[in-house]
Amino acid sequence: MDSSIKLLPGERLDDLQTDNLRIIQSEDLFSFSLDAVLLVRFSSVPARGRIVDLCTGNGVIPLLLSTRTKAHIVGVEIQPRVAELAKRNVKLNHLDSSIEIVCGDLKSFHLSAGYGSFDQVTVNPPYLPIDSGEHKLNPHVAAARHEVYCTLLDVSAASARLVKSGGKVAMVHRPSRLVDIMDAWRSVKIEPKRIRFIHPRRDQEANMVLIEGMKDGKPELRTLPPLIVHERNGEYTQELKEVFYGGRSELNSSL
Amino acid sequence: MDSSIKLLPGERLDDLQTDNLRIIQSEDLFSFSLDAVLLVRFSSVPARGRIVDLCTGNGVIPLLLSTRTKAHIVGVEIQPRVAELAKRNVKLNHLDSSIEIVCGDLKSFHLSAGYGSFDQVTVNPPYLPIDSGEHKLNPHVAAARHEVYCTLLDVSAASARLVKSGGKVAMVHRPSRLVDIMDAWRSVKIEPKRIRFIHPRRDQEANMVLIEGMKDGKPELRTLPPLIVHERNGEYTQELKEVFYGGRSELNSSL
Repeated sequence: MDSSIKLLPGERLDDLQTDNLRIIQSEDLFSFSLDAVLLVRFSSVPARGRIVDLCTGNGVIPLLLSTRTKAHIVGVEIQPRVAELAKRNVKLNHLDSSIEIVCGDLKSFHLSAGYGSFDQVTVNPPYLPIDSGEHKLNPHVAAARHEVYCTLLDVSAASARLVKSGGKVAMVHRPSRLVDIMDAWRSVKIEPKRIRFIHPRRDQEANMVLIEGMKDGKPELRTLPPLIVHERNGEYTQELKEVFYGGRSELNSSL
Repeated sequence: MDSSIKLLPGERLDDLQTDNLRIIQSEDLFSFSLDAVLLVRFSSVPARGRIVDLCTGNGVIPLLLSTRTKAHIVGVEIQPRVAELAKRNVKLNHLDSSIEIVCGDLKSFHLSAGYGSFDQVTVNPPYLPIDSGEHKLNPHVAAARHEVYCTLLDVSAASARLVKSGGKVAMVHRPSRLVDIMDAWRSVKIEPKRIRFIHPRRDQEANMVLIEGMKDGKPELRTLPPLIVHERNGEYTQELKEVFYGGRSELNSSL
């Protein structure tokens, strides 16, 4: 292990399986999961320009995005302790020149960043309304899962303010909220253009949805082939392995 | 062939592969297709009560529904020549006591039928905006494919007027219009509850979507497993065959 890496109690160092990226994760906070990896593979990433990742957490999405683009990437995280971890992850991977972590509130971030100042927005927001279950979670985990600091409409409105006209917004969410997402996006002029459902198994309901919209886009939605995670025997499907461990040769191919 | 059946020039008699149902189809008009069969298998059909099928065409959906329920079924069709064909199809199958075909406009049908007078609405509406392509179609085929007599919002508003609170509305449409559908439905208080995408092949985009909503329902959408139509070799998949030729033993099992 690199002698410059200091892990705090409860932290571990994980391999992101992509371009030797590594990530410090904390069991007290919230670990990255399949959602983030799938979102990065799904999203149409501009080759250059500026990308903002909202609700960036430990910075996993900016890290993964950095392997697919020369764009400048800004990650916004409201919780100071979590933003601090994201900053350490950027340093750990020597990506200070391409990724900037901002500890701030996405609801007011346009005031410093400017309206329409990004070519692309990515976001893996909290999935659950604030009033639903799991009240005993520690506050950092609760904030990652529940709409504690921002609602779906907050996230959508912030995305619409930050992205330029014609720019893309890519999100991963629960399919149960799909109508809410489409409703919120249209209300802020982000038109859904591509959607992909993730099913744990071939014969099961979707438990995740990837959706990309265009600011001021014209209505016409494409529904991509479904992505199935597990074979009947429980193993990962070939396509999932390709997404997850695709490595450099798969860069720039979107899902 | 039953001597009581008179076919007009350009007409043919087809087997619906379900309970010996037969249907007269006209090449000048619009023949039933996979869409109608899938919609009937997908929809939650009440055991009794009243069902209305809007844009009923030659009556294929009421015919197929009649094998799954004891409900009284009303089919509404605006084109007199097409409604006439639907009436002949009802007679041909001796279903006069359970199916009624009304030649009328869905936009005003609530004036005679009454608000909230149905437990369920089914509809296979025209898919394409009136201004899109194929202008040389004959007027009956054009009306089945294009929003000549009614738009998506007309169909949604009519459905919302006709169905009772807590009743279901089931529709088949193109996935490219999904955001429009969800938008239109929410605007008339039909909340999308179940959705299923049809993909021609496993690795292709969806070309059809089945969607069911509940009048005054609470938001929470379920995305069912995808339905794949063809194997790689071009044959129908096993699940498609089960839907299409499922026969009586499969009645009341929804997709």
